[in-house]
Amino acid sequence: MSGKLPECGVARFLVLLEGPWATLVVRELLHGTLRFSQLREALPGISPHTLTSRLRRFEAFGIVTRAVYAEVPPRVEYTLTPVGERLRPVLEAMAVWASSVPQLAPASAI
Amino acid sequence: MSGKLPECGVARFLVLLEGPWATLVVRELLHGTLRFSQLREALPGISPHTLTSRLRRFEAFGIVTRAVYAEVPPRVEYTLTPVGERLRPVLEAMAVWASSVPQLAPASAI
Repeated sequence: MSGKLPECGVARFLVLLEGPWATLVVRELLHGTLRFSQLREALPGISPHTLTSRLRRFEAFGIVTRAVYAEVPPRVEYTLTPVGERLRPVLEAMAVWASSVPQLAPASAI
Repeated sequence: MSGKLPECGVARFLVLLEGPWATLVVRELLHGTLRFSQLREALPGISPHTLTSRLRRFEAFGIVTRAVYAEVPPRVEYTLTPVGERLRPVLEAMAVWASSVPQLAPASAI
């Protein structure tokens, strides 16, 4: 992918929230500030590398802030910015639509 | 992934529209009925295999209908169902949010 965000809003969204984990990280942060370890616990199966890269991208685009507290060990907390908070209606729209789709398909379709 | 759709609406959405191509296929079909070849043209870079698998999943879950016309060669057209059409506000919400995110980050963030 080139360095520039796509012009098309949908394509731009898919770059900013690339892959399923990114959307699930936002889903968790919509509950409030969380530490890295709390995010890992809330998202079984996510690798530290994937979580780190998603959070870095979110930070780079002003979607999340990262606060480091000089404790032993250091405490690092992530919070959605106002831009990140504006994802709430998008995830709600996703959930409303998906919940309206009946469990029709045979297991093989997934 | 197990055969059953997740209970959580957001996770369920991410299974139904798995991967970036799925959402882009929906974006194109929101313009109206399209043939397989037209979808491929509209989405440079998508492989026939990926397009076929996404369309099959959409068909299995009642998101798309597939019409075959006995011509030579046969004509196959895809159309969003009412369930598929209800994705319009979700993609619009994605686009509105993503367009509000400034192109802040250094190219390396993408």
